[in-house]
Amino acid sequence: MTIEASSQSEQTSRIRLGMVGGGSGAFIGAVHRIAARLDDRFELVAGALSSTPEKAVQSGRELGLDPSRTYESYKDMAIREARLKDGIEAVSIVTPNHVHYEAAKEFLKRGIHVICDKPLTSNLADAKKLKKLADESDALFILTHNYTGYPMVRQAREMVANGELGTLRIVQVEYPQDWLTEAAETAGSKQAEWRTDPARSGAGGSTGDIGTHAYNLACFITGLTLQSLAADLDSFVDGRRLDDNAHVLLRFNDGVKGMLWCSQVAPGHENGLKIRVYGTKGGIEWVQADPNYLWYTPFGEPKRLMTRNGAGSHASAARVSRIPSGHPEGYLEAFATIYTEAAHAIDAKRRGVALDPAVTFPTVDDGVKGVAFVEACVASSKKNGAWVTL
Amino acid sequence: MTIEASSQSEQTSRIRLGMVGGGSGAFIGAVHRIAARLDDRFELVAGALSSTPEKAVQSGRELGLDPSRTYESYKDMAIREARLKDGIEAVSIVTPNHVHYEAAKEFLKRGIHVICDKPLTSNLADAKKLKKLADESDALFILTHNYTGYPMVRQAREMVANGELGTLRIVQVEYPQDWLTEAAETAGSKQAEWRTDPARSGAGGSTGDIGTHAYNLACFITGLTLQSLAADLDSFVDGRRLDDNAHVLLRFNDGVKGMLWCSQVAPGHENGLKIRVYGTKGGIEWVQADPNYLWYTPFGEPKRLMTRNGAGSHASAARVSRIPSGHPEGYLEAFATIYTEAAHAIDAKRRGVALDPAVTFPTVDDGVKGVAFVEACVASSKKNGAWVTL
Amino acid sequence: MTIEASSQSEQTSRIRLGMVGGGSGAFIGAVHRIAARLDDRFELVAGALSSTPEKAVQSGRELGLDPSRTYESYKDMAIREARLKDGIEAVSIVTPNHVHYEAAKEFLKRGIHVICDKPLTSNLADAKKLKKLADESDALFILTHNYTGYPMVRQAREMVANGELGTLRIVQVEYPQDWLTEAAETAGSKQAEWRTDPARSGAGGSTGDIGTHAYNLACFITGLTLQSLAADLDSFVDGRRLDDNAHVLLRFNDGVKGMLWCSQVAPGHENGLKIRVYGTKGGIEWVQADPNYLWYTPFGEPKRLMTRNGAGSHASAARVSRIPSGHPEGYLEAFATIYTEAAHAIDAKRRGVALDPAVTFPTVDDGVKGVAFVEACVASSKKNGAWVTL
Amino acid sequence: MTIEASSQSEQTSRIRLGMVGGGSGAFIGAVHRIAARLDDRFELVAGALSSTPEKAVQSGRELGLDPSRTYESYKDMAIREARLKDGIEAVSIVTPNHVHYEAAKEFLKRGIHVICDKPLTSNLADAKKLKKLADESDALFILTHNYTGYPMVRQAREMVANGELGTLRIVQVEYPQDWLTEAAETAGSKQAEWRTDPARSGAGGSTGDIGTHAYNLACFITGLTLQSLAADLDSFVDGRRLDDNAHVLLRFNDGVKGMLWCSQVAPGHENGLKIRVYGTKGGIEWVQADPNYLWYTPFGEPKRLMTRNGAGSHASAARVSRIPSGHPEGYLEAFATIYTEAAHAIDAKRRGVALDPAVTFPTVDDGVKGVAFVEACVASSKKNGAWVTL
Repeated sequence: MTIEASSQSEQTSRIRLGMVGGGSGAFIGAVHRIAARLDDRFELVAGALSSTPEKAVQSGRELGLDPSRTYESYKDMAIREARLKDGIEAVSIVTPNHVHYEAAKEFLKRGIHVICDKPLTSNLADAKKLKKLADESDALFILTHNYTGYPMVRQAREMVANGELGTLRIVQVEYPQDWLTEAAETAGSKQAEWRTDPARSGAGGSTGDIGTHAYNLACFITGLTLQSLAADLDSFVDGRRLDDNAHVLLRFNDGVKGMLWCSQVAPGHENGLKIRVYGTKGGIEWVQADPNYLWYTPFGEPKRLMTRNGAGSHASAARVSRIPSGHPEGYLEAFATIYTEAAHAIDAKRRGVALDPAVTFPTVDDGVKGVAFVEACVASSKKNGAWVTL
Repeated sequence: MTIEASSQSEQTSRIRLGMVGGGSGAFIGAVHRIAARLDDRFELVAGALSSTPEKAVQSGRELGLDPSRTYESYKDMAIREARLKDGIEAVSIVTPNHVHYEAAKEFLKRGIHVICDKPLTSNLADAKKLKKLADESDALFILTHNYTGYPMVRQAREMVANGELGTLRIVQVEYPQDWLTEAAETAGSKQAEWRTDPARSGAGGSTGDIGTHAYNLACFITGLTLQSLAADLDSFVDGRRLDDNAHVLLRFNDGVKGMLWCSQVAPGHENGLKIRVYGTKGGIEWVQADPNYLWYTPFGEPKRLMTRNGAGSHASAARVSRIPSGHPEGYLEAFATIYTEAAHAIDAKRRGVALDPAVTFPTVDDGVKGVAFVEACVASSKKNGAWVTL
Repeated sequence: MTIEASSQSEQTSRIRLGMVGGGSGAFIGAVHRIAARLDDRFELVAGALSSTPEKAVQSGRELGLDPSRTYESYKDMAIREARLKDGIEAVSIVTPNHVHYEAAKEFLKRGIHVICDKPLTSNLADAKKLKKLADESDALFILTHNYTGYPMVRQAREMVANGELGTLRIVQVEYPQDWLTEAAETAGSKQAEWRTDPARSGAGGSTGDIGTHAYNLACFITGLTLQSLAADLDSFVDGRRLDDNAHVLLRFNDGVKGMLWCSQVAPGHENGLKIRVYGTKGGIEWVQADPNYLWYTPFGEPKRLMTRNGAGSHASAARVSRIPSGHPEGYLEAFATIYTEAAHAIDAKRRGVALDPAVTFPTVDDGVKGVAFVEACVASSKKNGAWVTL
Repeated sequence: MTIEASSQSEQTSRIRLGMVGGGSGAFIGAVHRIAARLDDRFELVAGALSSTPEKAVQSGRELGLDPSRTYESYKDMAIREARLKDGIEAVSIVTPNHVHYEAAKEFLKRGIHVICDKPLTSNLADAKKLKKLADESDALFILTHNYTGYPMVRQAREMVANGELGTLRIVQVEYPQDWLTEAAETAGSKQAEWRTDPARSGAGGSTGDIGTHAYNLACFITGLTLQSLAADLDSFVDGRRLDDNAHVLLRFNDGVKGMLWCSQVAPGHENGLKIRVYGTKGGIEWVQADPNYLWYTPFGEPKRLMTRNGAGSHASAARVSRIPSGHPEGYLEAFATIYTEAAHAIDAKRRGVALDPAVTFPTVDDGVKGVAFVEACVASSKKNGAWVTL
């Protein structure tokens, strides 16, 4: 082993956490729980784990929650927990998209911090209302664009900010998957059902589910603002009501150009998020499936394979890295970093101290941008790929 | 060593070849000569190797050509060789683009087969005139879209044609390079000078030089026809007169959608041609820099790494493969395959027999399509990325 | 996201855990704590975290332990916790090797389950005594050969057991690192100091620290027994007292042959554990740095890239996988799997029920084998590489 | 395209070449012919292409040889060609191993340069006699250890010589294949038949066929001399008379240690030659199947991916590279480089000038070393892996 102690300090006073959604059988709920637990900064103490009351109760029991804190609705939970002396300080909202707004509202207005899954809401109007609520609330709002928690993504962001790539020119980002190549939504997959249902997902299919991640990642790493886009969306599978493939041209500020591809019908891609950024002095490439690496080519020099916590690792990457290079960290660790960043922020609030400026997490503003991106894609595609300003 | 004799038969009566362009210091001329020689089907016997007479003479001497067959102009060569009893049967044209049309004309009208570098011409009007001439001539016209000579590209094409990918949906093709990241054209690079000069290259920069390869490869593998495109072109380097980066949305027949990216300002990419094709039953990926591999994922099964001449190799790939799997073939071999395919066709002409239907090479039609593609990209970009029909 | 709930069930009644070693600044202690926490099956409630009393106390405070359960020696902890009504049920021993035996003894004899870091002890005599103690104790003994927790390692093991590789012939295993390329032990690295100190590490340097992992992994995947070995050990760095590079020839039962290379002076390898196994019907390859993949070639067919929880995933891999394919799991998850397997076993003991036969973890027997391997390597090398029987 | 003219100059006066062996159906004969032709430095004008007279004649006809120079035996060819005014200047010997010595003798004693396939001979006695003959002859002797022709192998050699790796410590070389996993020699494969026949191959199976390549490559790159080895050889396939798998420990001068594995029964390896070298300052890795890359890690810095003719390319690599980086060269080009190096040497002889010291090719000395290596492996293995001095 090559390095000393983890940079992720282990601390003592855990934040009391509730959860909305994430009952038995939900994928992302279990991920949030592991993420909350990994760095030992949260303790799950309450839940409204399903919109089906019996399932909510049973899921609470399975997770070992105190039955008196297993709620049949998130509203009940918000009301009661807000009154408890040791009620929850934060809540994770891991429901389908259309519930995010109403659920978040109940907690924000009671001063309970919200950690919410992406995309922010199922439509832009809700997103803007939610932003207003969040801005007015004293509580924090953290959006789990979890890919921003990967150390080498942090490194990429720092390299761009440092000017190591020079003046940026080109961004290529893609997020192909293959799990909706066939009509999984009519073959019994709950995950597929709500993700292809406009009522629950909103106007975007692949654009909402994964395109928002790709778009967020591009902005996070580059620090750029998207100004306009032109999109060509398809629903390749017969009967599918939302896009399952999107080709998008991007125009950022300062003349930077980009392309974004997201797809859920591309066989061979399990979860193929990948980003490449090019400037006058160099280029980088990061691939989510192999997240401990960052390829970096200074123009005119050999390509370098940077590794998490390895030689050439930057401070921002080391800060969110737990173990030595060569010992791979993965998706759960990156997700946990979002939670731990949230914990830093919540803890600073608790103690009334300034937040360490190194702490970084996606906010409600990123969420509004993501929903605006989805709606712009849909609007552009309906207008035969005309440029739409964001 | 695992296999027996080469599938590339060695034959005896070499085709007499002339060359236009390709004098000392030219990159692609030397490539054409090696390619012509590799399978022993051609013999270089004449040349008009430079537009500068002294350089033409000197280059001929360096190549060991008979001085009487070293010409100061391609026209002289065409006239005299056509009259010789053992004059050239075919000519390779490896000049900058703007010369292709006039040079090819001289040979075609004298019944001399033409093997011409891409893009076909520097503008669509010339391309169409050249097609007319080629169609009317008894001579063959072969365009060196050399990437179609790679065995695993042939395999990909066969797999699509066989339906192994099912109904096609998506094509992703890209061709990034980095050698024009800075203004090489003002720093003494001859290669950069003419490629960034509209008078010699035509309307397209990266689109003409490499975008045409990417577009051709996409059509070659998929068998699809591009119906329209929307392009966003840039010249990122100050003072550059032609595009050095292009983002293009593609619409093929039967509702297949695609994206094409070509760039000469993407640090980290030496010669990054790559194509991915997805259908209802599977997906494939091929990368030019690692050409002996083809990734293939049948939907719902593990990804497979197909190798040239290895297990699972198809007939069309084995046919143009010279050595066993694990013994890499490269760019020169793929280029040589174009020449050897040309030799098969020329030989069939010679002998008045039908051409083996397995023989495949790019023609003047592909060339016209390529130039049309460049002009459509430029037109679309000028109209702010409006869709342009091809 | 492609799949439904985690196969790693979340359960309620956490096992009370103590820790010996692992105070501030220790790498592996933090790893054990995260691993214990990840699947929520353990709760750390007591610790003798350092052999330096003040550091033990301070480390306990940092971890939020009850001060009354922060001990200045492991013996105190064993004695008192054994008497407490809610005393620890299990203890993690994460000290340097030479302490393992004495510490484990105190807990085993009081019926407290032991989860111990590898290698088992610093010499074979201790290892055998410890095995005797463990065999006689009602408590479980789990050795954290953590690499056996990786899902694709489990898959490899299942494939071999299923006969998918046919009759085995060859095992190639290597574990190169580079962090001791220079004399880190005299440059202030605590990690390097004890690992190169015979008094604390035992007779083996790289052989003990990482060679034991490689050897264990080879046996775990293949199910083979090593019969003899011939070793050539070196200490390349001036003044180093233990081997930092080992070349070992292996002879397993049934005529299977192998090679093992471990090194801590191989620049370019951060943590390069890799194993390849070949039989009459196929071959596999697994690389720890990219642990979500397993290469598999059925003889005469294309190579396949199997992925964790992806198409072709076997039951034993899916069982210890938490999230869908394409969402990488890493070192901490594999380590956590050892803890969770231990939890299954401890829980079965608690409830007096039979253990699910799918539960798999390294035991004291693996530990004895590992120490015997180290001593055989040293003995063989001293006899100029003569074969030594195990 | 990024660079200018090829470094492999095209020259005019071709060397007249004959060939022994390599008739229809032979793999390596066709390879030699392409290699001889690729850089246009040789012209094949005579052949004794098979030990079966009719096949010799037919093969000559297929290759377009003058019938008067198609011989029924190599001795006839040597005698007659030596008398011709424009007789062959060099001969390629591409027969099975046991013929090399007798054939080479006939040409060497007549002053005809010999380009001979490896291994040099089928036994060490012959090898030494051949060396004596070669040393006494005015003719050159070139052994086609073709892997030394790869540009990135040249680069690796130059880096070691330059001290870029510091003082060497470890060499890991392997050459696994899988084509003899089953008994191909009894299933009709000519290639397998002679390679598993002691009368034609000599004492070594995989050791002779591919182990010699691996050993030669290790010495070529490192400049080291092997002092002793300890080997464990197997014939895993029932009835096979020669080794098909070898595990070898290596001790070089100056305390450098190594391991060599060669196998023809390792499913998943088509032609897996790979070498890694480590020193006090850095490590390198080269893989034959991806020959345009060289991984280089300066200790304490990120890993770098060096490319043929790319940034960081050294003079010795550029010298034998024909086309720009990103345009892959392969096995045939590397083989051709051996021929072209031979041409440089023959040409210097012709002209009576000193040979450019940059010219590098394997000689009869390398051949003797290779055969000695095979016999040492066999001897060591028979003595249960005892160390054998070379």
